[in-house]
Amino acid sequence: MAHNGSTQPVRIGLVGLGTVGSGVVRILVDSADHITRHAGRPIEVAAAVVRDPAKERDCTLPAIPISTDIGTISRDPSITLAALLVGGLEPARSMMVELLESGKDVVTANKALLAEHGPELFELARRLGRSIAFEAAVAGGIPIVAAIGECLAANRIESIRGILNGTSNFILTRMEEDGSSYAEALALAQAKGFAEADPSMDVDGTDATQKLAILSHLAFGDWVPWKEIPRTGIDTVDIDLIRYAAELGYRIRLVAVARRSNGRLAMRVAPALVKIGTPLAETRGAYNAVSIVGDAVGRMFFHGLGAGQMPTASAVVADIIDTVVGRTAITFRTTGLLSADTPAAKLAGVDASERHFLRIVVTDRPGVLARITGILGDHGISIASVIQHDPIATGAAAAAASVPPDVALVIMTHLCPSSAVHEALLSIDRCDAVRGKSVCLGVLDE
Amino acid sequence: MAHNGSTQPVRIGLVGLGTVGSGVVRILVDSADHITRHAGRPIEVAAAVVRDPAKERDCTLPAIPISTDIGTISRDPSITLAALLVGGLEPARSMMVELLESGKDVVTANKALLAEHGPELFELARRLGRSIAFEAAVAGGIPIVAAIGECLAANRIESIRGILNGTSNFILTRMEEDGSSYAEALALAQAKGFAEADPSMDVDGTDATQKLAILSHLAFGDWVPWKEIPRTGIDTVDIDLIRYAAELGYRIRLVAVARRSNGRLAMRVAPALVKIGTPLAETRGAYNAVSIVGDAVGRMFFHGLGAGQMPTASAVVADIIDTVVGRTAITFRTTGLLSADTPAAKLAGVDASERHFLRIVVTDRPGVLARITGILGDHGISIASVIQHDPIATGAAAAAASVPPDVALVIMTHLCPSSAVHEALLSIDRCDAVRGKSVCLGVLDE
Repeated sequence: MAHNGSTQPVRIGLVGLGTVGSGVVRILVDSADHITRHAGRPIEVAAAVVRDPAKERDCTLPAIPISTDIGTISRDPSITLAALLVGGLEPARSMMVELLESGKDVVTANKALLAEHGPELFELARRLGRSIAFEAAVAGGIPIVAAIGECLAANRIESIRGILNGTSNFILTRMEEDGSSYAEALALAQAKGFAEADPSMDVDGTDATQKLAILSHLAFGDWVPWKEIPRTGIDTVDIDLIRYAAELGYRIRLVAVARRSNGRLAMRVAPALVKIGTPLAETRGAYNAVSIVGDAVGRMFFHGLGAGQMPTASAVVADIIDTVVGRTAITFRTTGLLSADTPAAKLAGVDASERHFLRIVVTDRPGVLARITGILGDHGISIASVIQHDPIATGAAAAAASVPPDVALVIMTHLCPSSAVHEALLSIDRCDAVRGKSVCLGVLDE
Repeated sequence: MAHNGSTQPVRIGLVGLGTVGSGVVRILVDSADHITRHAGRPIEVAAAVVRDPAKERDCTLPAIPISTDIGTISRDPSITLAALLVGGLEPARSMMVELLESGKDVVTANKALLAEHGPELFELARRLGRSIAFEAAVAGGIPIVAAIGECLAANRIESIRGILNGTSNFILTRMEEDGSSYAEALALAQAKGFAEADPSMDVDGTDATQKLAILSHLAFGDWVPWKEIPRTGIDTVDIDLIRYAAELGYRIRLVAVARRSNGRLAMRVAPALVKIGTPLAETRGAYNAVSIVGDAVGRMFFHGLGAGQMPTASAVVADIIDTVVGRTAITFRTTGLLSADTPAAKLAGVDASERHFLRIVVTDRPGVLARITGILGDHGISIASVIQHDPIATGAAAAAASVPPDVALVIMTHLCPSSAVHEALLSIDRCDAVRGKSVCLGVLDE
C-alpha cells in the first residue's frame, strides 16, 4: 500500500486488543494529529477482532465493529492494513495467511510466529505483493529491525549481542539488587505484570532465542531455525552464582549472541558474566539492549524498554506509518528477507576462545582442589582466579554426623576454547567428590 | 529517484574525496555485492569533483573522471544522485543548489550547511521534487536521524540529550583519564586526527549546536537558528574542574539538550556534570551518544562512533541506498521537514530546576565563605556540599609577599532554578574577595 497523495483516512484493522493492541489504539487516538502529520493522512481504526468482545479494554475504543471473526477485517475491502497483535502460533498463523490472501499488508509483534513460520509467511506475502512489518517483534521500542535492515545496510555485520528478554533481565536485576531468590524475583515479576502466568518461554530462553533468530537473519542473511540455537535460560541461575559473579566484578545477564566466524554463524542464548561498567551490565530491570559490530560503523549500542504496553505499541505504530507511506513495501522488497534463496544455515558451535566462570560443588576433603585443577590443566585450561567459600550449610543432621561439608569452588579461567572447558567438566563431574552438575558460564569483558 | 525494478547500475557523483568521500568509495568498492543486494541494483561511482585532482586519495578509485568542475556531475544526465561530502558553507551551498536544480537527489554529511541554510535548501529540493538525505550530518554512524524521523514517529518527543561532538569528548576523556591539561589533550586529538588544525568549531560548541538544531527540528518540528541556542564550549573546562567533579562522583561532558517545556523549546549546549555510571558519563573518547525520551517509548539510548572516516561513510552509504530504493523520497515528502510552514521557534531559556556545580576562586581570608553562602541563601539556593581545597599555588613571589593565597570553593547545590544561580553569581562575582569569573555547570544525575 503505497502513499498515493490521498489525504483520505487509511482504515486499518486490529487483531487483538490486549495490552499491545490497547496501546496502539491509545497512540492512534491520543496522538492523532501527530500521526497524521507523519503518515501524510489520518489513520483510523476501522474494525477489531478479539477472542472475547465482552472483555473490558485498557483504552477508549472508537465506535467500531468488534468481532471474533477475522472475516470482519479480511472481507472489508476498505481496510488495507491489519495489525496482528495476538501471541502464539495458532490461530495467529491462519489469521495472517487470511489477511495476506485478502490483500492486506500486515504489521505484527508476534516473534514466535515469525521465528517458527517466517519463511513461509514472508514468501506468501512476497508472492501476493504484500508486506509484513515486525519492528515490534524484537526488543520492543528499540528500532533494531530498522537499524539492521536499513540504517546499517552499508555494513557487513560482524556480531550481535543483546539482552532481548525483559522478564529475565528484570528477575536477574531483582536478584542482584535485593538478594532475592529466583522464585521470589519471578513472583515479583509476575505481580508487576512483567512476567506471564506461565513464564516458561521467557525464563527458559525461548523468547530471546526466537528474537535472535529474527535479528540474525536480518544481519547475516542466514535463516537458522530457532530450535537449533543452543539455549540455556535463567532458570539455571541461583543467588549464589550472582554473588560469586559480583565478587569478581561481574553481573549475570541472559545474553543472546550471534557472530560470523570463518564463514559460519555461531549463535547462543545463555546466562553470561558481563563486566560491571560495560553497557550490558548496566542494562537493568525490564530494559533491553543490543550491541552490533559492523565493519564500517564499528560498535553501535542501543538501549531501551524492550517490552511493555507503550514501548511495543510505539514500534507497532511506527510500522503502521511506514506501511501507509510506502517505506515498508520498499524495504520488504529490497532486503530479500527470507526469500526462497535464503542461504541454508551453517550453524557453527560457539567455540570462542573466551574466559569461563565455573562453579563446582565438591565434598570438602583433602586433594579435591588439586584433582580438579589438574583436570583443567590436562585440558590446557589456565586458571585466572579461584574462590573457595565457607562450607555450604547442609543441615544439622549432616553436621552432627560429621559428614565432610560441601563447598563451592568458583574458578575464573583465562581465555580458552569453550570445547576444552566442556570436555574438562565432563571429567570433573565424574569425580566422586563432585556433587551434582557443575555450572559453566561465558564471560564478556567488554 | 524511486526504485523502478531496473537492475541497471545507479550512477552517482561524489563531491569531495577527503576522509569521508574516500571511505564512501571504499565501502562501495569493497562491499559491492553486499550493497547491490540492499539497493536492488549496483551502485557505481561515475564521477568525482574535488578541489585538487592531483592529490593522493585514501582509496582505490575506479577509472572515473575527476574534475574541479561541479558541472561534470550536474551536466551528466546519467547521474541521478550526488553525495556532497565537502565541509563549510561555500562553495558547498552553491554546489548543492546546482545539483538539485540539475535534477540530482543529494546525500550530505555537511551539518554546518544544513544548520545555516537548511530551510532554503529543503524548500528548493521539495519544489523541484528532489530529496536531501543527511543521516551522516549528525552523530556519524548512529542512525539518529532515521530513529527520530521514522522509527519514533509514533512518539511525541519530550527531550533529547546528547554528546554530539567526538573531538570534545575525546579531549575531556583524555583530561580525566590521563590528567593532561586541556592544551595537551587538544594536541593529542590533533595528532590522532580527531581534531582539525583549526579545532575552534569543535571546542567552542558550534559543531554540537548545529547538530542539536537539526535534531531538534526533526524531533519537535520547530526550526531554531543554531546561533540562537545558548552555547558554551569545552575551552572553558580546565583540569581542576574535572578533578573536583570526579571527587563528587561525576565526569564532565559537553552535553547538548533540547526539551519541550510548557509549549516552548529549551535548548543548550554546555559542559555539564554527568554522574559516573550513567550512559552519558560512560561515553568515552570519540564516541557520541544520544538519549531521547518519547511519550510512548520512554527513554531510548544510542551509542556509537560519532565521527571518523568509516562510521560517517557508513551513514552516507545507508543514505545512498535509501535514496536509490526510494525510501528517502517518501520520508522527505512525509516528514514536512523544514517546510515553509515550519513553526517559528519559541526558544525558552533553559531554566530547569536542576542541581548546579559552582567553582568560585576567592582570596583566602576570614568571612569569605560566609559571604558567598549568604548570597546563595538570599537567592533561595540551598547547598548540598562544599569542598574547599588547598590554596592555589600563586608563585614564589606572591608567597614571599605574604599575600593571602587564592583558594577554590567548589559548591554543589540542591535543585534550584538556573536563573536564581545566575543572579547569585552576578552578585558573588562582584565581591572583592572573588578572583575572576566563577564557573557554573549544570548537573545531570540520570
